[in-house]
Amino acid sequence: MKPEEIIRDPMDGVISLDSGRAVRSAAYGQRASKLARLMTLGLPVPHGFALSFECVRELAENGEVPDLAGMEAPGRLLALRSSPYDRAWGGAPTLRCIGVCERSLPALENRIGRSASLDIYRRFIGEFAMTVHGLDPQDFQSLDPAAAASADPAALRGLIDRMLEFYEEEIGDPFPQDPRVQLEQGARAMAKAWNSPSSRILREAKGAPADAGLGLVIQEVASGFGTGVTGRGEIQLVDSRTGKPGYFGSFRLIDPDKPTRVREMPLAAEDAECGDEAGLTLEETCPGALRELRRAAMRTAEGLSDAYRLVFAIRSGQVAILDAHPVRRTARAAVQISVDLAKTGAISRSRALLQVDPRSLIEYLHPQIAPNAHRDVFGAGLAASPGAATGRIVFTAEAAQAAAAQDEPSILVRVETGPEDIRGMHSANGVLTVRGGMTSHAAVIARGIGLPCVVGASDLRLDFAERTLTTPDGRVIRDGALVTLDGTRGEVMAGSVEMIAPELGGSFSELLDWADAVRDLGVRANADTPLDARTAREFRVDGIGLCRTEHMFFDEARISVMREMILADCDSARQAALDRLLPMQREDFVEIFDIMRGLPVTIRLLDPPLHEFLPNAPEEIAEFAEAMGLPIAQVTARARELSEVNPMLGMRGVRLGVTMPAIYDMQARAIFEAAIAVNRDSRAPVVPEVMIPLVSANREVELVKRRIDAIAEDVQREQGSELTYKLGVMVETPRAALRAGDLAATSAFLSFGTNDLTQMTYGLSRDDAGRFMRVYVNQGVFPEDPFHSLDIEGVGELMLMASQRGRAQNPGLSLGLCGEHGGDPSSVRFCKVAGFDYVSCSPFRVPIARLAAAQATLLSRSQTPSGPSET
Amino acid sequence: MKPEEIIRDPMDGVISLDSGRAVRSAAYGQRASKLARLMTLGLPVPHGFALSFECVRELAENGEVPDLAGMEAPGRLLALRSSPYDRAWGGAPTLRCIGVCERSLPALENRIGRSASLDIYRRFIGEFAMTVHGLDPQDFQSLDPAAAASADPAALRGLIDRMLEFYEEEIGDPFPQDPRVQLEQGARAMAKAWNSPSSRILREAKGAPADAGLGLVIQEVASGFGTGVTGRGEIQLVDSRTGKPGYFGSFRLIDPDKPTRVREMPLAAEDAECGDEAGLTLEETCPGALRELRRAAMRTAEGLSDAYRLVFAIRSGQVAILDAHPVRRTARAAVQISVDLAKTGAISRSRALLQVDPRSLIEYLHPQIAPNAHRDVFGAGLAASPGAATGRIVFTAEAAQAAAAQDEPSILVRVETGPEDIRGMHSANGVLTVRGGMTSHAAVIARGIGLPCVVGASDLRLDFAERTLTTPDGRVIRDGALVTLDGTRGEVMAGSVEMIAPELGGSFSELLDWADAVRDLGVRANADTPLDARTAREFRVDGIGLCRTEHMFFDEARISVMREMILADCDSARQAALDRLLPMQREDFVEIFDIMRGLPVTIRLLDPPLHEFLPNAPEEIAEFAEAMGLPIAQVTARARELSEVNPMLGMRGVRLGVTMPAIYDMQARAIFEAAIAVNRDSRAPVVPEVMIPLVSANREVELVKRRIDAIAEDVQREQGSELTYKLGVMVETPRAALRAGDLAATSAFLSFGTNDLTQMTYGLSRDDAGRFMRVYVNQGVFPEDPFHSLDIEGVGELMLMASQRGRAQNPGLSLGLCGEHGGDPSSVRFCKVAGFDYVSCSPFRVPIARLAAAQATLLSRSQTPSGPSET
Repeated sequence: MKPEEIIRDPMDGVISLDSGRAVRSAAYGQRASKLARLMTLGLPVPHGFALSFECVRELAENGEVPDLAGMEAPGRLLALRSSPYDRAWGGAPTLRCIGVCERSLPALENRIGRSASLDIYRRFIGEFAMTVHGLDPQDFQSLDPAAAASADPAALRGLIDRMLEFYEEEIGDPFPQDPRVQLEQGARAMAKAWNSPSSRILREAKGAPADAGLGLVIQEVASGFGTGVTGRGEIQLVDSRTGKPGYFGSFRLIDPDKPTRVREMPLAAEDAECGDEAGLTLEETCPGALRELRRAAMRTAEGLSDAYRLVFAIRSGQVAILDAHPVRRTARAAVQISVDLAKTGAISRSRALLQVDPRSLIEYLHPQIAPNAHRDVFGAGLAASPGAATGRIVFTAEAAQAAAAQDEPSILVRVETGPEDIRGMHSANGVLTVRGGMTSHAAVIARGIGLPCVVGASDLRLDFAERTLTTPDGRVIRDGALVTLDGTRGEVMAGSVEMIAPELGGSFSELLDWADAVRDLGVRANADTPLDARTAREFRVDGIGLCRTEHMFFDEARISVMREMILADCDSARQAALDRLLPMQREDFVEIFDIMRGLPVTIRLLDPPLHEFLPNAPEEIAEFAEAMGLPIAQVTARARELSEVNPMLGMRGVRLGVTMPAIYDMQARAIFEAAIAVNRDSRAPVVPEVMIPLVSANREVELVKRRIDAIAEDVQREQGSELTYKLGVMVETPRAALRAGDLAATSAFLSFGTNDLTQMTYGLSRDDAGRFMRVYVNQGVFPEDPFHSLDIEGVGELMLMASQRGRAQNPGLSLGLCGEHGGDPSSVRFCKVAGFDYVSCSPFRVPIARLAAAQATLLSRSQTPSGPSET
Repeated sequence: MKPEEIIRDPMDGVISLDSGRAVRSAAYGQRASKLARLMTLGLPVPHGFALSFECVRELAENGEVPDLAGMEAPGRLLALRSSPYDRAWGGAPTLRCIGVCERSLPALENRIGRSASLDIYRRFIGEFAMTVHGLDPQDFQSLDPAAAASADPAALRGLIDRMLEFYEEEIGDPFPQDPRVQLEQGARAMAKAWNSPSSRILREAKGAPADAGLGLVIQEVASGFGTGVTGRGEIQLVDSRTGKPGYFGSFRLIDPDKPTRVREMPLAAEDAECGDEAGLTLEETCPGALRELRRAAMRTAEGLSDAYRLVFAIRSGQVAILDAHPVRRTARAAVQISVDLAKTGAISRSRALLQVDPRSLIEYLHPQIAPNAHRDVFGAGLAASPGAATGRIVFTAEAAQAAAAQDEPSILVRVETGPEDIRGMHSANGVLTVRGGMTSHAAVIARGIGLPCVVGASDLRLDFAERTLTTPDGRVIRDGALVTLDGTRGEVMAGSVEMIAPELGGSFSELLDWADAVRDLGVRANADTPLDARTAREFRVDGIGLCRTEHMFFDEARISVMREMILADCDSARQAALDRLLPMQREDFVEIFDIMRGLPVTIRLLDPPLHEFLPNAPEEIAEFAEAMGLPIAQVTARARELSEVNPMLGMRGVRLGVTMPAIYDMQARAIFEAAIAVNRDSRAPVVPEVMIPLVSANREVELVKRRIDAIAEDVQREQGSELTYKLGVMVETPRAALRAGDLAATSAFLSFGTNDLTQMTYGLSRDDAGRFMRVYVNQGVFPEDPFHSLDIEGVGELMLMASQRGRAQNPGLSLGLCGEHGGDPSSVRFCKVAGFDYVSCSPFRVPIARLAAAQATLLSRSQTPSGPSET
């Protein structure tokens, strides 16, 4: 059927879907827009019209349905569908077969038979009464259930008569027999339902603005009845889990005599979605239709630059396309689909890079809980490090190490972790803490070593003495219990749960190769150990952006020398301890530099307050005092002397460097000696970048720089070898950002430690924020956890200011980010906009950062408008 | 003697002092400039010339003394004096009587006699040899001590001959007998001495730049010999200690026969400076000279707008003015002098206001150690709260209370203080802590209540068990020892030390009245208690800028209800405790509002983390648990649950308000009910300003504001009374400053809590900074302790940004500062420049802030150039 007249003027609030004009989502909604687009691609979409938000708004206030060029004339069956700006915002269900009435029934009977026609009439009365008057369809069904289920025309007619009677009794008016009245009442009811408070609350929770409008689509009914092969289905040509090609979808064949009765039929032999029922496939029954559907899907992929799932109808062998949604996909499938589309030329490589959500790549790198697995969740916290692991609960780092020695997987549970737990974390298969936020010690370390981790599970009560975890409803999980930790979702479950293994496939590396070819923002890794450095190198980083030296001192052999150094009561005793630490520290750097040949390695000088290295528990103190030959009281006194009220804001970082310069002197010597040793026999020299932490005034940098430059000169002279190195500042205090102009005069680079910078800008300790961060994010106080996604408005402004001031003073200044945000795509994009040279993140987030950096580069070239979400 | 020719061209590097032109300090030094100025005032200054820095620089490189228009001709005696830009920077001592030589001796003998002439010649040879060749004057003296002391011409002549011989032996050249050569050698030696490394280091320590120059002044000798009354002296017309009028100074009468022999003579009968010797006064001996000196001093005060101490000579009854320095003065004298000068019309009131250093007013308010008292200092720390006190050492707050009960003055010594020490602090006469910085708890509280306090005396070891303090050199101060604390200097001394009592005199209030008439920057007080409020009102504040509510809960009766509230395990139990706190809290406000009628009172809602209210020590916990009827384990567990790693950055401020809104609800109700009760019978209503602490995002303000506005409405309806109140934000996080535009849309005022803002901008805990702040300030890493004087470059920039952004959004936005910096004059000046409406400081700093605010207003009207320091 062709339209009698095409209404083109969008100012009327109505437009025909095949007008050839763009139908804007912002005026007519996503469905209308999509259908019009499919028509321009030549797909067999049923003819129809779209009503604009404005038009539907008037309808709700008892306006009239505009002239539809005779479409609502008797004898035509119409479907009325919701079309909001974003499908996720809801809208009333579709009302199909408007136009069935006593007057049109004979013609319909001629086409599809009496029994089918009456069955459709019966269903329409029920659906109309529900949509327009809120009547319960069950009330109609219960009038005569047997008749409702039968295909006997007489029984159906009898039922229909009783329904019409019941309708009139309930509503006070007879069932409307004029198609235009049916259409108008239906449309007005849908418009009013959109404005109900519950609909409003539901869609606002999904981000809809208060004045969000509803569009409507009125189309000819293309399915639901017919002779020959008739039915409705969905089809996609790629596997949602893997992205591999094939037929996926479903088809429901309609009984020609009783259209409300349907039967599932697989699309093709290899269609996995369609249950286990044997029987004929659509391919065998109606091969032409399947061929046409395949063509339509390919045409859509090309035209809309993505893989789509088509909703279709077949009537008497004729295909009609009713709707199209982007194929739902796992991360793995997303990569595969995008790479394949790019390879066939359907989309460009840039498009392929932009289509994959970088965050989803994490699924590639760690085992994940299977999507449909049964989850017996007993605790929840922050999803601090992705991936899943099953193991027996242990409560101490030692127990985790013991379990590992017996190849027994373990999940380490702590209130919080500290440096003393690091070896235990390396042995455990997952970590759960009761306290802490996204950048707590446990979270940072776990992400660094790719260990699934949940932190801040504050509802669980940990009784360390009893070795139990208790849930708020009294469930007790004991030492040794088998549990599964889901670090991707932030949950912990009883028992073992089905998992999907990680797989770094061909299309994964292919996509990242494309990303590297595009991006102009460096990606480095935060790597403290040779193991980290090796992981980073495997993920093809551009260097190390943050090598923290403090972890190196927690080794058993070293911590005691470190403690001697701290407890030294004179400079010579301190120097003696430092002299013993020097070769150990040099060895650390030799190993890391060797792995990172040819690349820059940024080493942060000692940062934490010294009390972190001292023993805590009384028995530890006693043991240590005895080993040192010191009175216990002296060790205790010194530890108390060094203790701080707010260690985060205390005697650490460059404050140590200024007040106890011998420590940085030793570290600088170790770095330079190691670099010269490694570079001596290498054509790809490593470039050490020495980074000074916690700076708040440039004079601090000048004082440290003078000594370090002198040491570099000494070492080069002693070794008879030249060395290229850089000296820079870690920007962690707001003041360092504000004074970046000064700093840039003394420094070769500024690297933003956004964890601390966020803490100080918000006045918010990452260790203590876990307690209320969830409440804050849920109440929308913070749109997101600022330790997770960079706070562009606050912290970001400081970074922008620092970038501008630093570059104004020193145009060659290198700028980087080395906080946890380096692995967060929106933060990476911000760094690109702010003109940074690189981001640095945990090794396991390097792939994410590489893709995010490529996207940032592409987006900075041409801003692509972002449409509504399509899921 | 009049000059033969006046050299006027400063480009020659020489200028005559009576040229009538301004002789710039920046080119000729302070002495030259001052002498030229005194000549223009008509004072009898001896004729002479000034050599510029440039000229003296050339001299040092063996340049020549320029033509001095015959001044150096034989027969004239000249004095050569240093004239650096700032007198404090040193310079060689004056070389007097250049020109004495064999050739000029006869003429001199004719004027003053043979014996006096030879005595002068003898002295000159010695001084010349020392200045030019560094010979020790003792070497000359020891040639013939008896002759040196005698007035016998033959003995003197003999000595001189031996001296000339000795000179030639030592130097290799004969003593120069040409006055011009004497002058040239003298001037060149002084120029070279200026460039010696030791002179350089000494003056750079006093702030001189590396290229600081030396000027020289060459004048006729006006004293030292003569007939009739001859001598040298100093005179000022005001008392340095009180500023009251009188004659103060000294006069040394010269023996006409032996000019190197002098005798002290009082200026007048009431001259207190001139020892106890009886005898004639200058007034009796030479009344005309004293009258002339008095006129000269008055003329100088008028001409130079300040009280000056004149250095003078009298030769044969003739007065000559040699120099003038502003009178050294105590704070008390400074005020008295300035007020008196203004009242006589010698200076304007503005000038009087600008001449007094606001910081010095603190001397008015507290007892001070007498300037010349013996100080047996055994410990030093930061001068946290000014004033001095003597008392017996106590180590606990309870002991301080016990001592007070017996009227026994005590000095409370603690490692640090906490809220539990506040009552003890109120009882003690001074507080000493081993840890902590300028804004530690002890320092803040002590300043607030006007208690002398020294903090961070980290060299002292406190042994709490033994109740002793031990100094680094092993001196032990025991419990009960009598000590004196000097909070103005930051020292603690053994025993009792002589003091000066405070005195709030007439000129003090007069000056502050003038300040109030001038200033356009409000001064409020930080006042937590009715006592504070009363003190503030006495100091005539414009309101309360910060009333902290947490201290109100430490009262014994309340803390247990507060703890019940914190430990409540359900909302209804919490509400029950809050309901009991409400009337107590309302009473607090009623009392304060009553005192502050007619003025605004800014109340900060609860700020500290809740764990600060819980008991700490095991015995306290046990006691409390028993009182509450709770298991000890439960109390301990809750305390541990609430404990924080970095309490400063934790669950406090508005974060409490958002997550436990019932607390703020109670406080708001108490505030509004109290205000309505007080205002009901008052024609001067108080305006409560509710302030939300620790904001970092505007959504926090919106959430709290919605509830508080609702409570205000409820209370007004319940009470049937209207109330004017304001709601604003305390800007303490850098992010709040950055987002001030957002905040201004929701808030009536922004008040900058610069203590916390400084902590967060620097990443520096005020509690922990004490340990290295002294090292940092000494090494010039920070020019000043930023908790003491506002960091204009960093924190100040954030404040400026916030001020601009806030006012752009909301032009009526009120801006204030309520940190410790409110009592720091340079910070007050900054607030004026930044367009603030008020500053708020400790009650005892209010006078300082009032004067500083007046100065800021005056300075903002016309920038007066600041010259070199004159002391």
